[in-house]
Formats: sequence, structure tokens, C-alpha cells
Amino acid sequence: MRIGLLTGGGDCPGLNAAIRAVVKRGLGEYGHSIIGFRNGWKGVAEGDVMPLTRHDIRGVLDTGGTLLGTARYHPHSADGGLDAVRATLEAERIEALICIGGDGTLHAASKVAEETGTKIVAIPKTIDNDVAGTDRSIGFDTAVHIATEAIDRIHTTAESHNRVMVIELMGRSAGWIAVQAGIAGGAEVVLTPEEPFDIDRVTRYLKHRHRAHASFSIVVVAEGAVPAQGSSMEWETKYGKFGEIVSGAISERVAEEIAARTGFDTRVTVLGHVQRGGTPLPSDRILGSRFGVAAVDALQQGRTSVMTALRGEEVVLVPLEEVAGKAKPVPEELIRVANALA
Amino acid sequence: MRIGLLTGGGDCPGLNAAIRAVVKRGLGEYGHSIIGFRNGWKGVAEGDVMPLTRHDIRGVLDTGGTLLGTARYHPHSADGGLDAVRATLEAERIEALICIGGDGTLHAASKVAEETGTKIVAIPKTIDNDVAGTDRSIGFDTAVHIATEAIDRIHTTAESHNRVMVIELMGRSAGWIAVQAGIAGGAEVVLTPEEPFDIDRVTRYLKHRHRAHASFSIVVVAEGAVPAQGSSMEWETKYGKFGEIVSGAISERVAEEIAARTGFDTRVTVLGHVQRGGTPLPSDRILGSRFGVAAVDALQQGRTSVMTALRGEEVVLVPLEEVAGKAKPVPEELIRVANALA
Amino acid sequence: MRIGLLTGGGDCPGLNAAIRAVVKRGLGEYGHSIIGFRNGWKGVAEGDVMPLTRHDIRGVLDTGGTLLGTARYHPHSADGGLDAVRATLEAERIEALICIGGDGTLHAASKVAEETGTKIVAIPKTIDNDVAGTDRSIGFDTAVHIATEAIDRIHTTAESHNRVMVIELMGRSAGWIAVQAGIAGGAEVVLTPEEPFDIDRVTRYLKHRHRAHASFSIVVVAEGAVPAQGSSMEWETKYGKFGEIVSGAISERVAEEIAARTGFDTRVTVLGHVQRGGTPLPSDRILGSRFGVAAVDALQQGRTSVMTALRGEEVVLVPLEEVAGKAKPVPEELIRVANALA
Amino acid sequence: MRIGLLTGGGDCPGLNAAIRAVVKRGLGEYGHSIIGFRNGWKGVAEGDVMPLTRHDIRGVLDTGGTLLGTARYHPHSADGGLDAVRATLEAERIEALICIGGDGTLHAASKVAEETGTKIVAIPKTIDNDVAGTDRSIGFDTAVHIATEAIDRIHTTAESHNRVMVIELMGRSAGWIAVQAGIAGGAEVVLTPEEPFDIDRVTRYLKHRHRAHASFSIVVVAEGAVPAQGSSMEWETKYGKFGEIVSGAISERVAEEIAARTGFDTRVTVLGHVQRGGTPLPSDRILGSRFGVAAVDALQQGRTSVMTALRGEEVVLVPLEEVAGKAKPVPEELIRVANALA
Repeated sequence: MRIGLLTGGGDCPGLNAAIRAVVKRGLGEYGHSIIGFRNGWKGVAEGDVMPLTRHDIRGVLDTGGTLLGTARYHPHSADGGLDAVRATLEAERIEALICIGGDGTLHAASKVAEETGTKIVAIPKTIDNDVAGTDRSIGFDTAVHIATEAIDRIHTTAESHNRVMVIELMGRSAGWIAVQAGIAGGAEVVLTPEEPFDIDRVTRYLKHRHRAHASFSIVVVAEGAVPAQGSSMEWETKYGKFGEIVSGAISERVAEEIAARTGFDTRVTVLGHVQRGGTPLPSDRILGSRFGVAAVDALQQGRTSVMTALRGEEVVLVPLEEVAGKAKPVPEELIRVANALA
Repeated sequence: MRIGLLTGGGDCPGLNAAIRAVVKRGLGEYGHSIIGFRNGWKGVAEGDVMPLTRHDIRGVLDTGGTLLGTARYHPHSADGGLDAVRATLEAERIEALICIGGDGTLHAASKVAEETGTKIVAIPKTIDNDVAGTDRSIGFDTAVHIATEAIDRIHTTAESHNRVMVIELMGRSAGWIAVQAGIAGGAEVVLTPEEPFDIDRVTRYLKHRHRAHASFSIVVVAEGAVPAQGSSMEWETKYGKFGEIVSGAISERVAEEIAARTGFDTRVTVLGHVQRGGTPLPSDRILGSRFGVAAVDALQQGRTSVMTALRGEEVVLVPLEEVAGKAKPVPEELIRVANALA
Repeated sequence: MRIGLLTGGGDCPGLNAAIRAVVKRGLGEYGHSIIGFRNGWKGVAEGDVMPLTRHDIRGVLDTGGTLLGTARYHPHSADGGLDAVRATLEAERIEALICIGGDGTLHAASKVAEETGTKIVAIPKTIDNDVAGTDRSIGFDTAVHIATEAIDRIHTTAESHNRVMVIELMGRSAGWIAVQAGIAGGAEVVLTPEEPFDIDRVTRYLKHRHRAHASFSIVVVAEGAVPAQGSSMEWETKYGKFGEIVSGAISERVAEEIAARTGFDTRVTVLGHVQRGGTPLPSDRILGSRFGVAAVDALQQGRTSVMTALRGEEVVLVPLEEVAGKAKPVPEELIRVANALA
Repeated sequence: MRIGLLTGGGDCPGLNAAIRAVVKRGLGEYGHSIIGFRNGWKGVAEGDVMPLTRHDIRGVLDTGGTLLGTARYHPHSADGGLDAVRATLEAERIEALICIGGDGTLHAASKVAEETGTKIVAIPKTIDNDVAGTDRSIGFDTAVHIATEAIDRIHTTAESHNRVMVIELMGRSAGWIAVQAGIAGGAEVVLTPEEPFDIDRVTRYLKHRHRAHASFSIVVVAEGAVPAQGSSMEWETKYGKFGEIVSGAISERVAEEIAARTGFDTRVTVLGHVQRGGTPLPSDRILGSRFGVAAVDALQQGRTSVMTALRGEEVVLVPLEEVAGKAKPVPEELIRVANALA
């Protein structure tokens, strides 16, 4: 079989483990050919191919990023995109496609499967952990680790200087990184998209805490956190209509409000791109490896339009249509733990 | 409520996160008293108590080990052990007990519950991940991380020197660390207690690999790995009856056999105690925190003789009797992935 | 002897190692009393003391920050500051003072020694490494490590997305962190305060590199980097008078210029406070330990108004007056290596 | 110029940074050809060459080991070794040779220079830090880091279990790693080749410590540590003549003696090969980079039979004859600090 392989959307640690597993399993067990596409769907549209051999995947297991490159490109919204994709798949005689990506890539995969009839197996990756249908996506655990390490570091400097440190973490539609890194780093406050916050409650809590026993606090803010409707820090009235999420915007404003209301020395760190990079944790290498093997095995068994998923200790296959476009908010129990331990 | 708290068995990273969560939840939400016992069941038998306050748990979230100390002591097998435990529980007016431990501690917890009627909630911890009923126990992820890091390090030196490196990891009854670190570290061979190995097959594979393209190999050995019955490296005939597992024994012998049969320069590393220590990964801090909160909440709801457990994304309670003494071997799928990617 | 001890200026990793060494050496070898002052010179002025025992320094060797707290306060510029300091030193019967700090603290130490006649030994710390007279100050190596780790992480994401990544590191008056992390992280461009840059040259180089063989680049910018006089990116004409250094300002502008002139997808990361925090590297723990022991020994030998310093493999004492207020720019050889390997 | 390049002796982190620097500087600045030899002097004798291009050094800066491979082979002691080396150098028209290695490699370099007249510049590397003439050799800092991390991890498990943990670190002729990691890790006892130890004094100290306040201890042992003549643990009388250093031998015996004399629960960890491997610390990447550039520059300036060396903040060149065969023991001050802080 000639199997196409691509990585789409933002990069993250563990993608190379998945690529390696697809190649090793495909070549070694079944004698398939694995045809990589560079830069996600863009490379499919442009016919930018890179046949993958065992040589290409040597030494990549513990590396971040994706050796195939990636891009944010959606064939169904680009002009002539789907036609270009179809043309490449035909020219390269691709019989099946393994797509590693997040929500956008999965959506594109559904569209391409529908329009071209290509057999597709998807592998979920996203540091935001917001792909439905799977307990965890590739990249999430490493992102939480990097974020927690940053909170650990900021902790010691916050304590030494008696400061409130606001740290902004990734998470536009869901606060997975913020909540998990907040619990792991022992943050005093965690603000997420799931629960619009009331800045007055936050500052009251900080004042209470500093009066009682502490001289510093850590406030973790997901970049998609929003103030509650009707609260005193409503965007519309104080900062104008708040549209697209801009890196750093919410944390800067939260810090200003805290400083203004408490008088505490308050500083901001926006962690940014480092959350995407570097050596993957073992759990992301393992998840990538398991998903890669499972995706090739699924094609071998004739399964198509499915996504590999982790459910408890098992790797299973779920229909793409059940997961595409679904939200995956942080469960209430986790938010409760974060609050209980603040 | 006066709640007793102990950590038993071998120490591991994430215990302090669980202790902290029990104290914060117990004191903060419900106004309970948390009475720590030093050094596991031994401290209960000896009445070695340490009432825990918020002050005691400051700064412990990211630390390894257990601030309560631990010991391998089983009240039901020690002379007068259960009586001593009962006496302490009465003297300290303990109404309920939260026990953090592995198989041995859970077994002791069942016995104590049975004999004394004490309400007990258990929290599973073990770097070996062999407690049944839960996807994961506290300490496992960090141990896999440390082991993988060691394999990564040994990888570069193996490659530079064209050597076969044998690395022994923990795991007496189950090969969880070996399989997961083996996948994550890209080991060529992984030997586990679950699958008795044939040294001839191992060396044939290594010779084939070195002839084909490589000049080095990594062989991961769980300390409880055993040669297959009737294979040419049977313990009984070559090394005498193999009784208790001794650290380093199996890896030294595997290395000798490989060197003798292949002529490759072969070296051994026994990772040992470092697998138990140091800063816990976020996932172990989070698991400890969730289990700690869930244990206190369980008591509050009148649940008893249960163990907190991770099932997929949820924390649930399972009856102690369903898990005590049960094995938890590595699932076949994981072993298949390890082999597929070797 | 009653020895006062304080940490001043910004916190950094390795301070606790120095505090621990002063306490262990002072108490253990000579039977001195060590009186800690909280929050730097501010604590001296306010009489905020914390007598230090062996108990206080348990478990602090591998922790970041300073257990004494710190603040940016200069007694000689605060109203009545020097009088308040004198009063506290008399009230506490302090016979000698060990001051751990950067340029500001050393300057204050000279003033206090002059005005009050107190015996003073200083220990240099600064992540910026800009204290003259010593090869290295406490905290620098760890800061370089954190910065390099961030560059490593950004490297993989830059490569996956074909981006120019601009990363801003600390260093207002000297580019030590930028140059060392730039070399260690393999940055393509390193901009420092020592060498005003020409944005046209930078962008020409990036365009050349991307035409030739690469699709991504890393640009490291010290926060104190400045455009060259007369260059096309002069602050005065393009952005108005450039006064105080503001975190993020220079890197945002450099990124805008690069994007505008090259059309490359360009992103910014401002590393910020994480550079100050977390577990110190061994070399900072060792330097702190050596300086702490040396400072106590110096007082024992009657040396005063000196600073402990690393010179090659030796720890020596240098007169405070020889180092206070002196600059310590990055040597030309290091900048040459950074450029040679870009 | 055609410049040969080899790495000899044991591998260590930072070698690839040096190789990369030699290639980048040689090709980029001067238009030289860089001819790599595989597996150290063995590859020179066997004519095993690998011309190095910019492509070969992509992505190696942060990797451990050596991309050239290495071996312990000395041309002057192998039969016909020097003749084979001369033949290869002539066949490959090598005009100069850059040798990266430890004591053995430097010695071989002197011999080859003498016998063949080849221009040679040496670059010192050794995790043991026992090359004279330079403050530091490539690989040492990373080894200390790995060893310290292991001590940190063992610390938490020692404390949790009230144990004496004996940890054996590398260092046959000098105790650099043991002393530095011992200081950084807060070890209670550090045994080195420099100072033959008296086991009675060690156990008396441990008993005193455990009586006074502690319930655990860390004992760091360099693999080349030896008991003092005439002490109660003399090798000759207790264990037979002690010849070659065997990994694990000394630590096992020290642990047995401690357990026998104190009754404390005592465990051994032999850290082994992990000390050589993995991602180099920034300081080793920087040192490798500086030495690589300096070696090429030295040849350009006609300097020969010299070694690059770090002296304080400078990189200098020292005559090979001044350093070959010289010992570099740990300075007394460092040992004093280790003892003072125990």
C-alpha cells in the first residue's frame, strides 16, 4: 500500500515519535511505502512529497517538532484546495492517508475523505488537549511539564521578592494546560476559558491570603480566559470589544487590575512558544508510538475515517465524525482540585 | 473527624503532593484534624505521630520522597502488630485512616480494617505500576521519566563506542517501567517478567541488526525478567536455582551471554535507587493531588474500604477487596508496540 | 563574632547555597552567630532580623531564590537610610556583615562600610554576570542554562514552521546571557548592548541564509541591545527617544523590522522572570558554597572591605573599591565565537 | 589546508560542539577541508575517513557522544600503529591534525607529532577533569550535573527510608566529579583518590551525625578512592591485593564496612555510564565551541604541538609537552569546602 503521511497545525513534542512509528510499522511489518508530505495539507496541495525511509527516522524519537514540517492550511477553505489535494493524491497513487493534527486537521481530513474517497486515519495531537474522543493528545503532557517548570521557577522568585506573579499559558478554547500546570505548580489562582472570572473575587482572595500568612502569589491565566459578564472588569466597557485572542493581552490586564486593587508588586510572564518545543516527555513519545502503530494497523484492517484514541489504558479507534468539531472542556473534578488546593 | 495518614512501602515521587492534598482538603474544607504517622505502619504500631498543619506542607509539592517517612512493615505479620496498631488508633482517637502505599500497604489496610473496624481509604503508589484497579499509581510516570533519561544518555555513549549497553530497570513482578522506558528510549530489546526470554533469539536479533546497519544496541532488562524454561540460558542448569531477585543479577548474566555469543563489547548499567527519587513530574503531582482530595471526600461521604483509582480521565473509588493481591501485567498491546519499534 | 548576613537586588539561583555555607562555616568551625536580615538592606534599615540556625538551612541547597528575601533598596539614597542601618547594626551588636548581591548591593556595602566602619565582606551574585573582578557571579550559569533550554525548545518549533524566532533574554548593560546562550543554543544572530546593531545587516544575513539553505532562524536579543547610531532603525527617528529599558520593547521592534524587510513569518518570545528561578545548577551551588566559606574565613582572618571572587580555579579576595561601579563587558573572543558559529 | 579531525578515548557531552566549531570555522572562515577520522586513532591507522561538510554537523550542537565515533587505541603501543598512521596521513594529504581527547589521546598526539612531523593542535576533553594545563575540559560540567541530579534523587529516598546511601561516581585518578557533585548534592562524606580514607573515621562521623540529629546520610565515593595504609580497612589484608579499579568494587566494600560497624540500613548505587551521556550543558557546548574555533585559528597562525586551554575567562594555547602526562589533582580548597559543609 502507498500511505501518505502529514502533520498539520501547530507543532508539538511527540510528532516525530508518531512519524517514526508509522514508518517502522508500515515498512517493517507490512512492506508498505510511506510517502511524507511537507508542511501539512499545504504540501499535499502543492505536491511537496518526501518518501520516508528508515534512514529518515533515525535519531528522531527524542526530538521536538516535526521532521515533515507543518503549516496552518485548510484545503477546503483555500481556493481550489480540494482539487489540488485530489490531484496530488492521484499523481502519487496514495491509497490511504494518515493525518496527524488537531481540530483543524481532523476537520480537513473529514472533508478530504468525503470529497475524494481517500481512506483516512487520524492521529490527534495538540498541546491544548482539546480534541474530543481521546483522554489525551500528543504534546499535551510535555506542554504541561514545561509550563510547570516555569511556574516552579517563578515560584522561587515570587517568594524572594514578595510579588504577585501572573503567568499566561496556552489554551484558547480550553484551560487544560492552565489547570494541570496550576495544580502541579501549586498556583493560588487559575483562570480558564471554562469559567469566566470575577476580578473582584480574585483580588479579594489575594488580599485575604497575603493578610493571613503569605507574601507572594502565583496567578495562572489561560490565554483564552475571559472576565465574567457584568463583572467590574468587563472587556466591553473597560477595554473595548474584545475580539481575537492576542498573546499577552489577558494576563497584562489581569495584572494591572490586581496591582491597582491590591497595591501588590505584580509582574507578568507570557510563556509563549517554548510550550511547543523541545524534547518530548516519555509519555508523549509513547503515545506517539502507540498511535503510529495503531494507525497503520487500522488501515491494514480496513478501518477508515477513524481516529486513534487513548481510553484509559487502551488505544482504540473512534469514528472521525464523532469527534470532529466537538469541544473537550476540562472536567469539573480537575477544576475543583485546582481550587481546593489553592 | 480525626483522620490518620501514613505512607508505606518504598518511597516515590508524588507522595508529598498526596499528603499536601489530604491536609489542605481535610483542614480547609471540612475542619478535620490530620494525624500523620511516621514510617508507615511501623509508626502506627509504635505510636509515632506527627499532627499535620498547613505549615508542614509548605513547599513540599515539588519534592520527592515522603515527609512522613516510610518503612516496609506489615502489622499482620509482625508479632503483636495488629494489637499495637489498634492501641495507637484508640489512644489517638483516630476515626479514619488514609493509607498511601503499594500492594503490601493495601493488604495491610484490608487486614487492619477487618480486625479493628477502622474506616480506611487507600491511595495507590508504586513506581512499578503493578497495583490493580487503577490505570496508574503515584510515582510511575516519574520513574519512567528517569529511566528514559538514563536510556537517552546511554544511547549516545553506546553509539560513540559501538557497544551493546544492557540497562537494568526496576520491576520485579511486572515490566511496566522497562516496557514504557524501552519504547520511549528506543531500546532494541526489552526483557520483562511477563514474557520469559530466549537468549538465543535475543543474540540472533542483535547479530542480525549489527550486520544489517547498526553498530550499537540498547537492551533494557526489568530486574524480574527470567529466561524461558528449556532455553539455553536456563537458570537452574547454568547458574543454580534462582530464588530471590537480586539487584544487578539478571542484567550481568544477560550481558555475559550476549558478549560470549556475539563478541560485541557489552556493558551493564544498573539504574537502581535513582528511579525512586527527586522532583516528581507534573503528572505525579497532579495524580497525588487528585487522589488526596478524593480520599478525604470519600471519607466525608462515608465511603470506606475503598481505593482511589484513575480510570481514563476520571478519579473513581474501587473496593479494596477487588484490588488487593491482584496482579497487573503490562497489556499485550504495549509489548507489541515495544517489539514493533525495536 | 556576631555576623550579619543579607541578600540584596534581584534574586537568583545559588543564593541559598551561599547562605547555607555562611551558616555552616560560621556556626560549625568558629562558633559565630549568624544574624540574617530580611529583604536586603531594607531589612537592615527596618531591623527585620532572623537569627539563622542549622535548622533554617536544611534542604535549601538545591532550591532557588533566597530564604532571607530580597529587595531593591539602597540605604544611601533612602531618606535616613544610613542612620537606620547604623542603628540596627548597633542594636543587634553586629560586628561584621556579609552582603550577597550585585552592583547595587556592593555599592551600598562600600557606603555602609565607609559611614559606619562596619567590617564588610561581599559575595557577588547576578544572573547578568556584570560584576567586575570575578570570572563568574552566583546565578549566571543557571540563567544561561534556562535561556539555552528555551532556545533549544524554540529551535524545534522554528524549524517545523519555517519561522524566524526572536527571543529576548536578560542583560541590560552587558550581553553575557545572550552571547553564552546564543552560542550554546546555536543562534543565528545575537544582539548585545556591547555592539550596537545595524538592522539592515541583520536582515541581509537572514535573507542570505534562507536563500542558501535554511528555512528558519533564531535571533537572540539582550534586553539592553540598541540599534547603531545612524542606522536605518535608529530609535530617535523611528520610535521616539528611547529611555528606560522596557521588557519586550527591543525584541518586538526587531521582529517588526525583520518581518517588514524579509516577509518571513516572525515571532517573539520574551523569556522574562523564569531566568531568575528554580533549582540552581551544580556550578552555582558550588560557587555559592565556596564563596560562603571564603567570606567567613576572610572575616576570621581580619580581611575587610573585600569581595570573594573566582579567578580561574581559585577563590580569591579582591578589594571592594577595585570592583564597585566597574563594568564587565563580554570579551571580544566570546562575541567572535558567537559570530563565527552563526 | 586539509585538516584531519578525530575524537579519542571515552566519549562525553560537548564533543559534537567542538567538531561543529572546527568544521564551521575551518570551512567558513578559511576555506579549509576538514577530514574526519572514525573511531579515534584507530580510524587514522585504518584509513577510515569521513570528509565533513556543513550538512554533517546540522543539529548536533545539543547532542551527546561524538558523531565521529571513538575508541581506546594508541598508535604507539599497537604493532605497526605509527606506520599505519603515517601512511594514512600521507594518502589523505593531511597537513594538520586536530585531536580531541584526554590524557591518552594527548600522549598519542605528542608521539605522532614527533614521529611524523604532523602539525597538531589538541583539544582537552574528559569527564574526569584530570587534564593538566586547563581549568576545565569538555564534558566535565555535564558529568557533574548528571551526578548531582542522581545525588538529589537519592537524597529524597535516603531521607524517606532513614538509610545510608553510598553512591559511586567516576574518577580513577582524581576525585573531581566526586568532590564537585558532593558539594553540590550536599553529601555528608566524599571519598577521593587524593585523600586515602580511614573507614573508622567515616563510620564514627556517621554515628555521631545520626545520634545528633539526622536519620540518613549520603556517602559519595570516587571509583578510584582507596583506604589509607595501615587503616582497619586496608585492602591487602582484608580483600587481597587491590589491583585494577573495577566498577562498583570500592563502593560495595565501603557500604559493607559501614553497615557492619553502624548497623544502619546501607545501600549502594553505582552511577556508571550515564555520567558520559546525553545532552551537554551549555557550558560544555560553549567550551567545545570556543576550543574548536581556537584550534582552527591556532593552525591558521602556525601554532603547533599546542593544546587549547581555559584559563579564567580566556582561551589560551599551551605547549603539549607542558601538559602531557601531568596530574591534575583536586585543589585543597575544594576539598576543604566539601568537608566544611558536610
